[in-house]
Amino acid sequence: MFGNVTIVGVGLISGSFALGLKEKGLARNIIGVSRTEASSKKAIDLGLIDEALPLEEAVKRSDLIYVAIPVDTSLTVMQTIMDLVTDRQVVADAGSTKEALCAALENHPMRSRFVATHPMWGTEYSGPEAAVRNAFAGRACVICEKERSDKQAVDIIEKIYHELGMHILYMNAKDHDMHTAYISHISHITSFALANTVLEKEKEDNAIFELASAGFESTVRLAKSNPSMWAPIFMQNRENILDVLNEHISQLRKFKACLEKENNEYLLELIENANRIRRIIK
Amino acid sequence: MFGNVTIVGVGLISGSFALGLKEKGLARNIIGVSRTEASSKKAIDLGLIDEALPLEEAVKRSDLIYVAIPVDTSLTVMQTIMDLVTDRQVVADAGSTKEALCAALENHPMRSRFVATHPMWGTEYSGPEAAVRNAFAGRACVICEKERSDKQAVDIIEKIYHELGMHILYMNAKDHDMHTAYISHISHITSFALANTVLEKEKEDNAIFELASAGFESTVRLAKSNPSMWAPIFMQNRENILDVLNEHISQLRKFKACLEKENNEYLLELIENANRIRRIIK
Repeated sequence: MFGNVTIVGVGLISGSFALGLKEKGLARNIIGVSRTEASSKKAIDLGLIDEALPLEEAVKRSDLIYVAIPVDTSLTVMQTIMDLVTDRQVVADAGSTKEALCAALENHPMRSRFVATHPMWGTEYSGPEAAVRNAFAGRACVICEKERSDKQAVDIIEKIYHELGMHILYMNAKDHDMHTAYISHISHITSFALANTVLEKEKEDNAIFELASAGFESTVRLAKSNPSMWAPIFMQNRENILDVLNEHISQLRKFKACLEKENNEYLLELIENANRIRRIIK
Repeated sequence: MFGNVTIVGVGLISGSFALGLKEKGLARNIIGVSRTEASSKKAIDLGLIDEALPLEEAVKRSDLIYVAIPVDTSLTVMQTIMDLVTDRQVVADAGSTKEALCAALENHPMRSRFVATHPMWGTEYSGPEAAVRNAFAGRACVICEKERSDKQAVDIIEKIYHELGMHILYMNAKDHDMHTAYISHISHITSFALANTVLEKEKEDNAIFELASAGFESTVRLAKSNPSMWAPIFMQNRENILDVLNEHISQLRKFKACLEKENNEYLLELIENANRIRRIIK
């Protein structure tokens, strides 16, 4: 049980994290740090946080500081936080990219009090209203560069994630960013691009609205995701994403070639190969 | 209430249709026509059909014949069926493409007994086991070239779909095939291609399995869909699909250009535009 926990950002991930802490009795008092008073107020009203404070004051009063804000802003905010913490505090982040942040903090004198984490959960919604109870249960959480953090700090963070129902995977930051490009970031790009495709081609909105089946909704729902969260992820992980995106475009071109040349045999082969994804998602 | 209803194909769509007829008390006896004895047996065991018969015998004994088989096979099987029916029977199909079939039957002497339909529902699963109760409720069903069918035949089919909870949209076959390319077929191509991308790039299956979040599952689940159902749809609707696919590749290239040139402003613009899909899917 912690005394004070600060969440920096009061949105989808931090809010769900805070709800989990409260539910499991892991925090007495949760302090929220937000750029806007409206978000702070909403987070209090929704029971995500107990009070809102400016960053510096919040950090100074807290045993644990949990940062879940866009990954570009995170680079500077984390620096500020790390400059404030003592060796009795623990700092963790929840960002979808890890290489840039780990590199930025590599030589910070308090590096060992920081645990780089990425809970593999999210939805297409954002803001305090998007926070949900029991969000992380059954999902994986990646911890990067565990060896650069104090064992005691890692133990605390792992204990919390375990209590929230997650299992932990260890990776170096480089591998993390490569895998998440494949398994998460490219899905968002294809969804955004598919939404733009349909919005471009289909001028009769009513026809889309009426015809859109569950399959379409499923492939395009991530296109509702927040630009200020996702643009920085794409930029920070641009090399890995470009690599996957090039492969994806070349896979789409294979389908195009099949249709242009009416090559049914190859089309079947491409689809049968795709079916192998069944081994991976049940 | 019909006496005998034949479903041709005993899978996802026809099986779900049959379950609906039974539940609503719309059919006394359901006959299944399948290419394999194993499927027929399974359909009987699952309660989808009451008996299995060869096509000709089944058609001759039925008031209503409902055809839900791959759209290539459908072209010839429908011809056989239409050659057998009298003007006291009604035939409907549930295919995902409509132009080729409507054209093939255009001059058939019994054309007026045929109603071309497309219930906008499906899952990534196939076969008798994939059939589910209450499948169509709340979804749209397209009827094409209504004016070529007898009013009495259309009334019967509409009454059934209404009982199953669907609302009806009317379209010509050409418009139907264009809209479904945008709203359904391209989603399947992007899912298949995304699965192939990830399977190609990500050799460490365990990493995918562990990291795959709900977002990834959502964009890639259609990649589990049946090749023998989808390849013929893509081929029959190839011109429309190529049109959308070219647009989709060019939309992906815009993301690629943003990343290559580190053009953050344009990246935000692309994502914000994609967010407009919120107006269409809630």
